[in-house]
Amino acid sequence: MESWVDGQPADVLSLKDRGLAYGDGLFETIAVRNGAPVLLERHLQRLEAGCQRLAFNVDLSVLGAELSAYAQRLGNGVLKLIVTRGNSLRGYAADPSSPARRILQGSLPAAYPATHAEQGIQMFPCTVRLSEQPLLAGLKHLNRLEQVLARAEWRDIEHAEGLMLDTSGRVIEGVFSNLFLVRDGVLFTADLSRCGVAGVMRAELLFQAKSQGIATQISDISLEQLHQADEVMVCNSVYGVWPVRGCGSARWPVGPLTRKLQALARALLDA
Amino acid sequence: MESWVDGQPADVLSLKDRGLAYGDGLFETIAVRNGAPVLLERHLQRLEAGCQRLAFNVDLSVLGAELSAYAQRLGNGVLKLIVTRGNSLRGYAADPSSPARRILQGSLPAAYPATHAEQGIQMFPCTVRLSEQPLLAGLKHLNRLEQVLARAEWRDIEHAEGLMLDTSGRVIEGVFSNLFLVRDGVLFTADLSRCGVAGVMRAELLFQAKSQGIATQISDISLEQLHQADEVMVCNSVYGVWPVRGCGSARWPVGPLTRKLQALARALLDA
Repeated sequence: MESWVDGQPADVLSLKDRGLAYGDGLFETIAVRNGAPVLLERHLQRLEAGCQRLAFNVDLSVLGAELSAYAQRLGNGVLKLIVTRGNSLRGYAADPSSPARRILQGSLPAAYPATHAEQGIQMFPCTVRLSEQPLLAGLKHLNRLEQVLARAEWRDIEHAEGLMLDTSGRVIEGVFSNLFLVRDGVLFTADLSRCGVAGVMRAELLFQAKSQGIATQISDISLEQLHQADEVMVCNSVYGVWPVRGCGSARWPVGPLTRKLQALARALLDA
Repeated sequence: MESWVDGQPADVLSLKDRGLAYGDGLFETIAVRNGAPVLLERHLQRLEAGCQRLAFNVDLSVLGAELSAYAQRLGNGVLKLIVTRGNSLRGYAADPSSPARRILQGSLPAAYPATHAEQGIQMFPCTVRLSEQPLLAGLKHLNRLEQVLARAEWRDIEHAEGLMLDTSGRVIEGVFSNLFLVRDGVLFTADLSRCGVAGVMRAELLFQAKSQGIATQISDISLEQLHQADEVMVCNSVYGVWPVRGCGSARWPVGPLTRKLQALARALLDA
């Protein structure tokens, strides 16, 4: 489907855009099901937090309406939204009053092997570490070189995702997923106040798990805790939940809580 | 002057470019004097180091010729080069064989107040810290949100630059400059193996200083060492050298080694 820039069909962008120059922008990758953006409110909430942190001038009601209109035309697929600070002259200084730029791109539904969800995946133990920057932690901003370098560490198809630690060795997330582990019936996920992307599906699954009486805990996670987990899974807003069967020498069974959260995600995502 | 993309006149870029999507690219800001790029070899060397680190597929001889041809038309001004990994589909994985994209943009000579160079500047003590990522340290890559946030900390014209520390509190650089200090006749600049941009003018001044018998030292620099310096200056490849008169409560005189390095830079840059 054709892309939109500020509500108009376009497939190109000004060379002066600060998204290109500095990665001065944010993005959201949104599943679209039956003409509607899935978890739209959560995506908009995260985007709003990012816009506040970066002092972007965005009208979220205009943006929300635009996302809905675009999703209606897309039908089923994936909607990628990029918001940049727009054009600027040379230099890092930005005009805080100039409106942010909205870029919408649509694509077909993601085509992952069904075995990822059914039997679980192997994760590649990435050596690239996430640097710690509390001012940007949690945001889905456009400065993604660490993910690009991490994703380049494996090219085989045996590994469906990569595990990323921070520079202090804490377990944080996948390259394009958040990570949960289960231990003694408690659902753990990493504290993302120093680095990492606070995923929309992670937030939704935490919310739904709590609603169903499952104990949840957001905390620092060591490699040892990961290795001793009863279950491990990854999630994102496009594929839902994949069980993790192994990473490096570690092995985990596919457990009942993983299957439960997977069913919750599937109910949101399956068209 | 019109911009070039891969050697052709253009003012727009594909929305699929990975420079936009992930900041998956590098840049160089090159002074152009009398139709020639200043310190071209050093710019190409840094770019080559970046291309190796990010596994970009760039023909540097083609790029060098293109920069020279563009500079000849520009005459006097500033040439900004952006190299991106080119287009990709959704996802962080890149095709290592696909050629990188070359973007050249020209602008008028930088218009800074003459007093910056003559009398020296005040630096704003930024609270935004540089995160430590050895894999990206030194490169002039497109992930520049830390600089964008730091530059937004001051809007008055009393401060011409901002001082940036790393997350451990070491003195690293300016927002768009490298920093030197002088103590007992020795020229110090920060070790940039954890973060920071290894500037072309910094490299040239270190080289020229050594050639003239001035002792130089690349090392970690504490705030205390900065405060106790005899002279402080900042540099980049566009404006050359500015003496630093103060930062926060600290004050420094404009000293003889600063004036000497400033003259060296001026010889390179003044048209």
